[in-house]
Amino acid sequence: MRMLEEIREQPEALRRLAASAARAHEIAEQVRGRRLVRLVAHGSSDNAAAYGVYALGVLAGMTAMRDSISLSVYYEADLDFSDSAVIALSQSGRTQDVVAYLERARARGALTVALTNDAASPLAQAADEVLELQAGEETAVAATKTYSNQIGAVALLAGVEETQLRATADVVEQAVAELEPVVPPVAAPFAFVGRMLIVGRGFEFATAREIALKLTETCRIAAEPLTATAMQHGPVAALDALFPLWVIASDDASLHAVVAAAKRAREIGGTVLASGPAHERVDGAAFRLPSPPAPSPELEPLVSVVAGQLFAWSLARAKGLDPDRPAHLTKITVSP
Amino acid sequence: MRMLEEIREQPEALRRLAASAARAHEIAEQVRGRRLVRLVAHGSSDNAAAYGVYALGVLAGMTAMRDSISLSVYYEADLDFSDSAVIALSQSGRTQDVVAYLERARARGALTVALTNDAASPLAQAADEVLELQAGEETAVAATKTYSNQIGAVALLAGVEETQLRATADVVEQAVAELEPVVPPVAAPFAFVGRMLIVGRGFEFATAREIALKLTETCRIAAEPLTATAMQHGPVAALDALFPLWVIASDDASLHAVVAAAKRAREIGGTVLASGPAHERVDGAAFRLPSPPAPSPELEPLVSVVAGQLFAWSLARAKGLDPDRPAHLTKITVSP
Repeated sequence: MRMLEEIREQPEALRRLAASAARAHEIAEQVRGRRLVRLVAHGSSDNAAAYGVYALGVLAGMTAMRDSISLSVYYEADLDFSDSAVIALSQSGRTQDVVAYLERARARGALTVALTNDAASPLAQAADEVLELQAGEETAVAATKTYSNQIGAVALLAGVEETQLRATADVVEQAVAELEPVVPPVAAPFAFVGRMLIVGRGFEFATAREIALKLTETCRIAAEPLTATAMQHGPVAALDALFPLWVIASDDASLHAVVAAAKRAREIGGTVLASGPAHERVDGAAFRLPSPPAPSPELEPLVSVVAGQLFAWSLARAKGLDPDRPAHLTKITVSP
Repeated sequence: MRMLEEIREQPEALRRLAASAARAHEIAEQVRGRRLVRLVAHGSSDNAAAYGVYALGVLAGMTAMRDSISLSVYYEADLDFSDSAVIALSQSGRTQDVVAYLERARARGALTVALTNDAASPLAQAADEVLELQAGEETAVAATKTYSNQIGAVALLAGVEETQLRATADVVEQAVAELEPVVPPVAAPFAFVGRMLIVGRGFEFATAREIALKLTETCRIAAEPLTATAMQHGPVAALDALFPLWVIASDDASLHAVVAAAKRAREIGGTVLASGPAHERVDGAAFRLPSPPAPSPELEPLVSVVAGQLFAWSLARAKGLDPDRPAHLTKITVSP
């Protein structure tokens, strides 16, 4: 039951993080002195990095990229880091190639920032600045509260205020309470689904990635995250009633693209699950998981991921799998 | 049979492109005057952009990113383009949001370069510089020769010489000749496969993306491309004998990661297909598709993609599908 408990602990974890807003804003001030932000991470942390591209872009007007680790660590590309800030995300702070990347970037002049749950970890020790996630110990293999605190930490670095993050924590609490009883009967019909597409765009592409990863890890579903546009450029050809599409509908500037993707899937006989505060804008969804709106669109991913976390937990249980200890995975992945 | 014919036309198309090397190098000189390269595209063109991150990084020491289109076009983020070069890739030159992005970036001071097969297209007209793909008309919906000429064009912009590209075209010709008779009996056993992972890293991540897209479009397989490391951070949990793993094994700095991913898949009972010039380094692969080595590792993706193109064409035929006209797709995707 650790995964479920950790899903429930998210509001409290976000409030602990919110208390570090002043520290985050100090670091943000330094980051803004650089022209380019390079985010590096794997797994759920890399999904939080995908959020960072939009949060830093829209809220701080900064160009941010999910950088290639292998380009520096394996290929030893001769890149200029002097105008870059590196934000390295790792719950454990022990992901080897992320540490190796950060060390290399720092030696080449980058400002390096570690976002980690362990301030004594190798990643924290190697970085110029550390922002502790303060998620508390996470024991389920599938990340939940460390993911949401990474989103929260990136939001603070993009300039979100402590009060906004606290208000969002309250909405996350409401979402968990409202969704817990609603999710199991929606998840159960997916017990024999082998493959899914999870569609989100903009800020919610991070949520699509994270929900897909939870479903893959805990339910053994081949769930692929796509932007609404990428879906139309190929994968739509493979959809049918046995290959459902989950669309994350939040009320922001890219909602129209997500609505159009769902419409296209319906036209060709696909089965649609719509979640998020704007789910009613999606016509013809066979399954719906509403969630309350966040205080502002850029903080929506903290709320909209909850439906996916609870769905993955509930479906794993319905399939007789242990969501706390998925097959073939360990909490810290040692890179080859 | 257009898709097969267009696969066969790739060496000739690459030779036509090679004749533009001087023009490409002129444009490359301008690109090198900027600090950051932003690549934008969708579908197969976006896979060629993924190649650009490595080609420009390793060969030209330039930081290159696949930029978010929605960040500029939908969210209207206030980003600084004054130090950026934009390389926009579109076979047709008519992908609406790519054109919209390029216009916005140019107005904000970016140097803009269009890589397109149609020098009279809206994208070409909107850009500062145009490098024509010269792939010839492509009529199959699934891109093949325009993809490889995009890879070739990006390689030229990264500094590859005309003679290297011509030498690679010869190897592509050899690969097509050697693989055509070999692929059908390897592809046929995959007729009822519903989902696959395609693993490549570094330069070959582009190839993994492109092979996955071909399989999804033409064979209706849910094929997801992953780096070797991303696979270990979650998706490995879903693998079994009915969820095969295709690994692209080329002899470069990231081969060890790909070999390790295949080993992990074998340990948990997964079925492995190994392709590429270093396929023999992959132990326990049930299926193999060797290809001849390219003149240098950074041009390998032009050769290693051929096995995937022929596999997708052959498997679609074996399943009674029309690879030239996949369901629900059109040659030019109109963005929502």
